[in-house]
Amino acid sequence: MILGAWARLRAERRAPPAFVVGGPELLRACAERLGIDCPIVPIAEPAEALFAHAAGLPVMAGLDGPWHPAHPSADGARLALASLQWATKFALSGVASGLVTAPVSKGALAAIGWDYPGQTEFLADACGRPYRDAVMMLAGPSLRTVPLTVHVALAEVPALLSAELIAHKARIVAEGLRRDFGIANPRLAIAALNPHAGEGGQFGDEEARLIAPAIAALQAEGIAATGPVPGDALFTPRARAGYDAALCMYHDQALIPIKALEFDEGVNVTLGLQIIRTSPDHGTAYDIAGQGKADPGAMAAALVMAAEMAQQRG
Amino acid sequence: MILGAWARLRAERRAPPAFVVGGPELLRACAERLGIDCPIVPIAEPAEALFAHAAGLPVMAGLDGPWHPAHPSADGARLALASLQWATKFALSGVASGLVTAPVSKGALAAIGWDYPGQTEFLADACGRPYRDAVMMLAGPSLRTVPLTVHVALAEVPALLSAELIAHKARIVAEGLRRDFGIANPRLAIAALNPHAGEGGQFGDEEARLIAPAIAALQAEGIAATGPVPGDALFTPRARAGYDAALCMYHDQALIPIKALEFDEGVNVTLGLQIIRTSPDHGTAYDIAGQGKADPGAMAAALVMAAEMAQQRG
Repeated sequence: MILGAWARLRAERRAPPAFVVGGPELLRACAERLGIDCPIVPIAEPAEALFAHAAGLPVMAGLDGPWHPAHPSADGARLALASLQWATKFALSGVASGLVTAPVSKGALAAIGWDYPGQTEFLADACGRPYRDAVMMLAGPSLRTVPLTVHVALAEVPALLSAELIAHKARIVAEGLRRDFGIANPRLAIAALNPHAGEGGQFGDEEARLIAPAIAALQAEGIAATGPVPGDALFTPRARAGYDAALCMYHDQALIPIKALEFDEGVNVTLGLQIIRTSPDHGTAYDIAGQGKADPGAMAAALVMAAEMAQQRG
Repeated sequence: MILGAWARLRAERRAPPAFVVGGPELLRACAERLGIDCPIVPIAEPAEALFAHAAGLPVMAGLDGPWHPAHPSADGARLALASLQWATKFALSGVASGLVTAPVSKGALAAIGWDYPGQTEFLADACGRPYRDAVMMLAGPSLRTVPLTVHVALAEVPALLSAELIAHKARIVAEGLRRDFGIANPRLAIAALNPHAGEGGQFGDEEARLIAPAIAALQAEGIAATGPVPGDALFTPRARAGYDAALCMYHDQALIPIKALEFDEGVNVTLGLQIIRTSPDHGTAYDIAGQGKADPGAMAAALVMAAEMAQQRG
């Protein structure tokens, strides 16, 4: 997927000066097997990437191992973890302008003792921030959505929501859109939790009790927040033209429209940390990993978006 | 909206031999005010519609009153109710092949003593069926979805779901697709309730406890049911190609993708009753009613779909 994305971006002359942290031998073998035109240029330190870039894909040497892309293993997990740790250090020290992560096997990582729910929480920790400050945003060419709760049972969602949580995450989204996306006055549309926004309290009161107060607080701070908008009214073409990001109450409310509308180009952006971080909006797909079958569109989009965000920060 | 839909379908030579139940004077005045080329032909009984059809839009005379399309009122509600009652009788007696309902003001209807949650429940009663047999399906050109729970608070959804309910409604959907849509072996995709289908029980167990048993029961009866499919994986272009209807656990899971993808052509179909019933998939829009501003696409699609369903039944 990394190779395909890089080859595509290079062919389109859009490849940012990025480098891969780890796996030069594996990537070389993979490119050869799949017949992807992507010369691998091993580098010893990040600073070499800028020069190596013209010759091919710069890959940090030294991090490699006997693993296979399609089979989660302890060796693979150790390499993935070392790559993530190094890449995070590079981003935090400013040697790299940002970080694009590939999907990992959480199961294999857990088996070697890694105790984070996902890479995002690891990064929040590395940045010295509480998990709740690392806000996931899904971004495609025509839509950005933010799930305010993520990997929890639907039954638990109502109890996890609060006006404070909604306003807190909305502030992080507004700041992220200003700083990294160049939107001076971000327009945030806040979704309702219940169908028809509860139809005036007939089915559910979270709109009046939690969401409206959060919107009022945000507006009082000068943030252009609107809502609560019924979930099904939020993603019509006309509605989408009216905001810069839709803040959603739960995972599927944010992910369904992104995957329905922008499947191949959805990028997962982490806002709220001092580093830039993007990743392709899909899982490991071990059934097709390393076979050249995965559409590299999302990885290419994640690379380009990270580069654009870095440029925006200047 | 009715006038616009009719005028559009007539211009495209696709107008089915339908008639409007009620409001000839109002419709005539409306057409004149808006400059819509739609001659109104008052008829005394449904049988006249077939002949009147060539001259214009047949409208049942006798049902009319001093009301305004943009202002819900007791007079308007009384006319809407009488129209609905007559139209239901026509459909039940076979004088009409089916019924297309327009949006109504539930508030105004409730104020004159009507005690149904909506037109669908009224129709179930009129057909002598329990409410749960009247299954709402949203249908557009490239997607059909069915919300298994509808107008209830999101917090109540998990407790309302059962394997029995899921299988019961799925059977009605499969039968409806066979009888009214000509799909011999309907493929039903059943959504998960929790993100990532609960990720193996990590967040939520409804998939293993309720949804998988329902799917097994349906498969044992020979119904091509698959799932539970994570909500966000269910509406990608590739996934949509693999089923005839997606059965969703709650309102927004079914309505978000329909309105994102098929906003102007979404039709609300009621399955499980002996009569054919469709309606445009939007509300009353009183702010623009009677002004010729509403896109008549959904009403036109509802008319055409009812006619096609009637043809399918033969």
